[in-house]
Amino acid sequence: MRLLEDRIRKDGKVKDGDVLKVDGFLNHMIDVRFVAELGREFYRLYGNCGINKILTIESSGIGVACLTAQFFDCPVVFAKKAKSKNIDAETYVVPVESFTHGNTSQVIVSKQFLGKGDRVLIIDDFLAKGNALLGLIKIIRESGAELVGAGIVIEKAYQDGGAKVRAQGIRVESLARIASMNEKDGVVFCD
Amino acid sequence: MRLLEDRIRKDGKVKDGDVLKVDGFLNHMIDVRFVAELGREFYRLYGNCGINKILTIESSGIGVACLTAQFFDCPVVFAKKAKSKNIDAETYVVPVESFTHGNTSQVIVSKQFLGKGDRVLIIDDFLAKGNALLGLIKIIRESGAELVGAGIVIEKAYQDGGAKVRAQGIRVESLARIASMNEKDGVVFCD
Repeated sequence: MRLLEDRIRKDGKVKDGDVLKVDGFLNHMIDVRFVAELGREFYRLYGNCGINKILTIESSGIGVACLTAQFFDCPVVFAKKAKSKNIDAETYVVPVESFTHGNTSQVIVSKQFLGKGDRVLIIDDFLAKGNALLGLIKIIRESGAELVGAGIVIEKAYQDGGAKVRAQGIRVESLARIASMNEKDGVVFCD
Repeated sequence: MRLLEDRIRKDGKVKDGDVLKVDGFLNHMIDVRFVAELGREFYRLYGNCGINKILTIESSGIGVACLTAQFFDCPVVFAKKAKSKNIDAETYVVPVESFTHGNTSQVIVSKQFLGKGDRVLIIDDFLAKGNALLGLIKIIRESGAELVGAGIVIEKAYQDGGAKVRAQGIRVESLARIASMNEKDGVVFCD
């Protein structure tokens, strides 16, 4: 998606340790009007698939998921990391390793909010090693819901997460796919 | 706000330990169309105040903040809990105690995204003891930005957070104010 690639070129910063900082518009400050355009694009891609629920994972997936869900006119369920007092005992649980935070969390979704009859689109901001995405897929399978596909804002295509998920026959649409990046040359996109 | 009070009566559950579970529409599954109506109400209340930025705190504030920001046509900044690799060293930091999670986090906002010239509306899902809100207020003051007020979805008015903040002369608008609640009788609203 040209609009997104241009924005990443303009405002994204490549940092040491394979980090692409897009916190000026995506995951610390959210440019709501811009992110809604990403949502419109996800709707163009998945709008005819009968989706009735969007699943994402806290925290940085929530904004893009909510702004996308407006086009689908469906609710968002966000998977939570770790246990809090407010979480029901009746939950799906998978362990997910986080690249960004350098730790492993228990990721949980209440059984009330996902199950048979749901047609689910996963939305997330990044896909790299695929740990979060694979965790959400596992939860959807366990719930009996149907996974329609995943909508990713930025895929680090030089890492193997996307390939692993697509190898399972799952549709993954990434709005920007990064072929390579480094501090000196910045970001190179696929195609 | 009648629409919200009705929804809390219908779908909210009072649990042991002073917990109001609204995770069926607000903070686990997000009823996006409904929450956008809350955003419209915040805009009715604050739409003429020249707000150019909405500040919230992860995770459950992000959805309502993004859906509210669409009416204001402004970006959302969400304060993050604890340090991750993706956070700039140049940050405002305050410690905030969480009732929900039973711990204290360092809450941080990058200095890039908040400062002089900003007119800020704080949006959050709950106000009880006011710890999160007081933390965000401290960050805004430190940044030199102007705090216009706070928009809260649900205030536990029987706790002292709202009074503490209003005593500082800060405008706080809560869409539902709970006078009391318990498992047996459910929720009683103010007024």
